[in-house]
Amino acid sequence: MRFSEFGLTTLKEVPADAEIVSHKLMLRAGLIRRLASGLFTWMPLGLRVLRKVEAVVREEMDRAGALELLMPAVQPAELWQESGRWDKYGPLLLRMTDRHDRDYCFGPTHEEVITDVARRELRSYKQLPVNFYQIQTKFRDEIRPRFGVMRSREFIMKDAYSFDLDQSGLEASYARMHTAYTAIFERLGLKFRVVDADSGEIGGSRSQEFHVLADSGEDAIAYSDEDNYASNIETAATSPDGIETAPPTADMEKIPTPGVKTIEALSQFLNVTAEQTLKTLIVEGTDGPVALVLRGDHELNAVKAQKIAGVASPLTMASPESVVKATGCGPGFVGPVGLEIPVFYDHATIGMSDSVCGGNEKDMHYTGVNFGRDIETPETVDLRNVMAGDRTPGGRGTLSIARGIEVGHIFQLGTKYSEAMDATVQNPDGRNQVMSMGCYGIGITRIVGAAIEQNHDDAGIIWPAPLAPFDVVLVPINMHRSDDVKAAAEALYTELKEKGYEVLLDDRNARPGVMFADAELIGIPHRLVISDRGLAAGELEYRHRSDAESRNLKREEALKLL
Amino acid sequence: MRFSEFGLTTLKEVPADAEIVSHKLMLRAGLIRRLASGLFTWMPLGLRVLRKVEAVVREEMDRAGALELLMPAVQPAELWQESGRWDKYGPLLLRMTDRHDRDYCFGPTHEEVITDVARRELRSYKQLPVNFYQIQTKFRDEIRPRFGVMRSREFIMKDAYSFDLDQSGLEASYARMHTAYTAIFERLGLKFRVVDADSGEIGGSRSQEFHVLADSGEDAIAYSDEDNYASNIETAATSPDGIETAPPTADMEKIPTPGVKTIEALSQFLNVTAEQTLKTLIVEGTDGPVALVLRGDHELNAVKAQKIAGVASPLTMASPESVVKATGCGPGFVGPVGLEIPVFYDHATIGMSDSVCGGNEKDMHYTGVNFGRDIETPETVDLRNVMAGDRTPGGRGTLSIARGIEVGHIFQLGTKYSEAMDATVQNPDGRNQVMSMGCYGIGITRIVGAAIEQNHDDAGIIWPAPLAPFDVVLVPINMHRSDDVKAAAEALYTELKEKGYEVLLDDRNARPGVMFADAELIGIPHRLVISDRGLAAGELEYRHRSDAESRNLKREEALKLL
Repeated sequence: MRFSEFGLTTLKEVPADAEIVSHKLMLRAGLIRRLASGLFTWMPLGLRVLRKVEAVVREEMDRAGALELLMPAVQPAELWQESGRWDKYGPLLLRMTDRHDRDYCFGPTHEEVITDVARRELRSYKQLPVNFYQIQTKFRDEIRPRFGVMRSREFIMKDAYSFDLDQSGLEASYARMHTAYTAIFERLGLKFRVVDADSGEIGGSRSQEFHVLADSGEDAIAYSDEDNYASNIETAATSPDGIETAPPTADMEKIPTPGVKTIEALSQFLNVTAEQTLKTLIVEGTDGPVALVLRGDHELNAVKAQKIAGVASPLTMASPESVVKATGCGPGFVGPVGLEIPVFYDHATIGMSDSVCGGNEKDMHYTGVNFGRDIETPETVDLRNVMAGDRTPGGRGTLSIARGIEVGHIFQLGTKYSEAMDATVQNPDGRNQVMSMGCYGIGITRIVGAAIEQNHDDAGIIWPAPLAPFDVVLVPINMHRSDDVKAAAEALYTELKEKGYEVLLDDRNARPGVMFADAELIGIPHRLVISDRGLAAGELEYRHRSDAESRNLKREEALKLL
Repeated sequence: MRFSEFGLTTLKEVPADAEIVSHKLMLRAGLIRRLASGLFTWMPLGLRVLRKVEAVVREEMDRAGALELLMPAVQPAELWQESGRWDKYGPLLLRMTDRHDRDYCFGPTHEEVITDVARRELRSYKQLPVNFYQIQTKFRDEIRPRFGVMRSREFIMKDAYSFDLDQSGLEASYARMHTAYTAIFERLGLKFRVVDADSGEIGGSRSQEFHVLADSGEDAIAYSDEDNYASNIETAATSPDGIETAPPTADMEKIPTPGVKTIEALSQFLNVTAEQTLKTLIVEGTDGPVALVLRGDHELNAVKAQKIAGVASPLTMASPESVVKATGCGPGFVGPVGLEIPVFYDHATIGMSDSVCGGNEKDMHYTGVNFGRDIETPETVDLRNVMAGDRTPGGRGTLSIARGIEVGHIFQLGTKYSEAMDATVQNPDGRNQVMSMGCYGIGITRIVGAAIEQNHDDAGIIWPAPLAPFDVVLVPINMHRSDDVKAAAEALYTELKEKGYEVLLDDRNARPGVMFADAELIGIPHRLVISDRGLAAGELEYRHRSDAESRNLKREEALKLL
């Protein structure tokens, strides 16, 4: 491709609304252009990258025996009413009404449609297992679209849905997808982790996420290199095993702490560490407010808390009025001692002694609080986020925390949709049996953004080779004045294309600095500079995008590096 | 691909709502499944065909220098308001409102979006010409979706948009697309014609349609093999050249014709041919009703009539009351003699003499009507559809009429959108100049239906080789009982796949008749039958889908035929 014929314009300025590096670079390098909030046009350069992602995903899905089909983007409300999601899904679902006043939505996901296809097509267990997938445009009406294609409203997904006779079949289908996804992200040349995850609103039992690792990732991932454990921090479990409690060394005392309402202020005021304090949070329960107690330096994990029987879901902090009514004091001075509402203690609290906590009285705290003496030793629950240095649940390793961008998610749905929509097949005994389903998503458009978050420098994008829109960029110096350079560049362009490389020839009448900057910005892996001086020496200047310096090489040597 | 793993179910029964053969066969062969009115899922077999169409279109567009991009399906109302189409487009446009109450539509076409892209990206004439295309899902909210994928609501289009500095540039871009489209339909193995067409609501000056020829086609095409003329019947012109009038031989008489209201009844009653009668139609004009006069056997062409100055557009028949008021009599007895409203005569009427026409009085007609004596010889206009046997406008040939399915349409839009949306570039003189646009569509999904309309028999589809979902189907007889057949079938399957063929192995435990019927229904070009008897003779049974009979051939000979 010749630069002059590629309709590509790069930008020097960083667009004002772009918050993260991939968004900035995708706009600057001309991969995408904004149409409206959360809506982007994929320009020719960006689409080349997108198609590479699609091709790898398609090949590995086919290899895993999945069958590609294509469902409509527009879905009738009736199916969503059948599954119960028409009312539950909320404003993320873009709804519309046709000329006959029938309700539809722009599909954000296709569980209902595929279950409808499956219940019509699949009659016998002999047709199972089967896994249907599609690569398709979806829409989620995000309240605040941002981060470019990472959280856009319209996006491209690969969504797959497996159908099996029973749970053991589902587990086998799920394992095949785990293998396929691993192959996909390896082939794409991305550093990633597979983590245990919460199933969220999609539902079902087991699920795992595939995260591209990047410092800017929205998700925190807890992992251990010692025992392969990895989990989204939302679901990374803590355990009470091995926690030991030191015996009390101090008496419990109630002391004045005027105006001291935060753990930080309390630590300073009493000259104790946050680890010595107990943090008590009042949240809505299923039957009035309840208290959640954590070690002062620990973070509450809402996903875990709202799954506890007695705690309202979604997790909701109690209003200040409700706190006063339940505890006799305002937020900031609440503690578990003598509290008369249900109290849930995090596992880690049991390892504390001589603790500091709220006094359940304005401007007062207790010190020297001990379990078994001042508070009855409780059953503990898992309430907190794991931290770097925590032991893994298996106990064989230590956790590290990394940040990741979720690009894939595999779910064991079980019978959630097939039961609601009566998707059955005849089993070997001749009876109807509800099928077990799995669903498997990959954010095709999001992968492009995530790849850039992981692979860039100050000058621009550094594409992993499998994603690069071109393999090599040719930069002829003064091509419009030197016939030799022009002839050499054209010959090299033709030769490399014939060898099967994807080549971008920068044939613009532009200064070398402009061409170098654009080549770096758009991140082509291999760069070859053709100049009169080089030609005189029979040399090309070669630089890999990730090299610090360029090298002058004989033509043949340079070509060998590609 | 093994049949047993392909998730394919064929149907014996013809679904009740399928009216045309392609719709019936696509459902029976399992290419598509209906989700809701005008919404279809492309099943794996159908998607394979669709992808072949896409690949050919993409290759030829790339070869023509067009650049692929991908615009959002969801489009903001603001752009449609800018072009003026938000109000004009009517209920075909599926509109929706997002969570912030902003208006959007599901794009049925992308002139507005691409013009917005172009006015941001293109600054200088040096960036021209450029032609952007995409292959994308569109939506038209048809009032009565029918004919399966031929008139569905959601469909896949290839839409391309060229930008040039001026009309001569546009004409060159348009010519390149004409060449590319011709290559596409030739490569797809379809019989087609390119015809001159009306530009309709898209607007612009010149346009041509690409029609796949099929008896069931919705459009009539007039063409001449003698001088390459071809036109949609909507726009095929007639001319007054060479029309001669015989001198009068009879006096004009007003005669009673009680209850005779149609041309047919009139011909019978007076024993004259329809060619001797004048048909007078009263339609709405821009300033009260006007009369259109045609030869009795000719058909009014609404597209032509509504373009005439003085005739209302869209063409609207006058109400019976309005006819009485304008002519003094009801419909059925109106004629041009002495009529006091504007009268437009079709070219062909001027060649008539001693004609019969309405008497402008209930139950009365005139006979012996002649121009120049009874009616002042008028200027004539083009009002009618051409017929087989008419001369071509060039006069060098004779027209034939064929039926076609429109699968492609190329337009010279000119500055219609670029002017409304202020899409300019700097011209060589340094001044801003509105760009000239072309737009070029291909109905990707529709091509699949049209190919079947053109290529089928009573047993099913007969795919042109470039569209076939598989090249060859292997039908082993009693594979589940004969180890020899099984081994031979598996070996052949592996060998053919390695040679690069797309092979469907019918590994079902089904009767031969069922397998043969399915192979014919889904229309795979080459069929090889493997049986114990054939193996004993070292033979395979070969049949091409379009052959009447199968042949027993030595294995090597059979493979040569592929």
